[in-house]
Amino acid sequence: MAEQEKAGQKKAVVLVSGGLDSVTALAVAQDDGFECFALSVDYGQRHRSELDAAKRVSDAAGAPLKVLPLDLRAIGGSALTDDIDVPEDETTGIPVTYVPARNTIMLSLALAYAEVLGADDIFIGVNAVDYSGYPDCRPEFIDAYQSMARLATKAGVEGGAMTINTPLIDLTKAEIIQLGTTLGVDYSMTVSCYQADGAGRACGVCDSCRIRREGFSASGLADPTLYS
Amino acid sequence: MAEQEKAGQKKAVVLVSGGLDSVTALAVAQDDGFECFALSVDYGQRHRSELDAAKRVSDAAGAPLKVLPLDLRAIGGSALTDDIDVPEDETTGIPVTYVPARNTIMLSLALAYAEVLGADDIFIGVNAVDYSGYPDCRPEFIDAYQSMARLATKAGVEGGAMTINTPLIDLTKAEIIQLGTTLGVDYSMTVSCYQADGAGRACGVCDSCRIRREGFSASGLADPTLYS
Repeated sequence: MAEQEKAGQKKAVVLVSGGLDSVTALAVAQDDGFECFALSVDYGQRHRSELDAAKRVSDAAGAPLKVLPLDLRAIGGSALTDDIDVPEDETTGIPVTYVPARNTIMLSLALAYAEVLGADDIFIGVNAVDYSGYPDCRPEFIDAYQSMARLATKAGVEGGAMTINTPLIDLTKAEIIQLGTTLGVDYSMTVSCYQADGAGRACGVCDSCRIRREGFSASGLADPTLYS
Repeated sequence: MAEQEKAGQKKAVVLVSGGLDSVTALAVAQDDGFECFALSVDYGQRHRSELDAAKRVSDAAGAPLKVLPLDLRAIGGSALTDDIDVPEDETTGIPVTYVPARNTIMLSLALAYAEVLGADDIFIGVNAVDYSGYPDCRPEFIDAYQSMARLATKAGVEGGAMTINTPLIDLTKAEIIQLGTTLGVDYSMTVSCYQADGAGRACGVCDSCRIRREGFSASGLADPTLYS
């Protein structure tokens, strides 16, 4: 990209987990004309191959990736960080894979990074299907977060703005896959599974695998996921 | 404390930095009848003696202390974490010691901890004097944070509550010192200085030292601070 073009570009921080949703959010942000800065949090997740995937998708998109270590195992309370079994049957209510205040924490780190970069936009790939009982994936949570963020920063005092962009929030998994495919996303690089093995192969049976598999099926597109 | 009394106590997470304000907030929370869980964040602050002070004041109060490592130097943007000189003259506007989104991040970690503990209350020692140009010490920020927090958690979905308590927000430094002294706080254990030495001795000249020194002077109480 020419330096001149870059100089006029608005900056955005994009939370990239290495999963299907966040890579689509990154593609949307780039398509919207933002210069993107990817941010991943190494929160002690059991599925370490997620972080490898975050690196692959950020590299492929040409977005610099920052990985922040924050060991949430010290706080506990989730099957994704603790020694609790990930359920393999469909669950109702708030699942045990819920990480307490996860999106609140991720957005807060993105907010700090955005403030340092001088970016007025944050992208996060939350959506209604992945909501799946998670309180911090709901639109009313995002709205409240944005109101708080506008007061939290220098920009808030000095009359700037801060927008939390959630381009996927109203989309089904199939619609997300169709959108990303249109934007050129290679989903074979992503990992969604809650208990993927070291090589990034998905279990095929956890909640996240089930939602992803059904999404590809409903999208009419081939599922490139590597199952173990 | 008798187990029976403890069983009926409401729990609170108290953000403890080792400074004058947070130890007073901890004393207020205990005086209000809460079973307190202290939380410190090791964010790569240059004044490491703050963390030693956090341990001392939590131990003295009988509150278990959890220290979470989160290296904000990776994000940068502040004289408290970067290689930027701490100013020794009174400053106006947002000071260079401002850590981007610091209170947003601290409160988010406290929120996660509160959710795991089943606590509906968080205490943070922000106040109008320490505001000193920091956007995230203003009452409107705290109100917005609380609204967001009530939507962010399981409790928010299941009809619970979450209160961000700021017992010092309207007090002058002198009033905080008088309140803490009434509650038995030993301020000689605390460190406020932005550039304290390894033994916790204060420089006496930074913004934080100046505010603290003037506070003791106005309170009419002896200043137990160890200056270098």
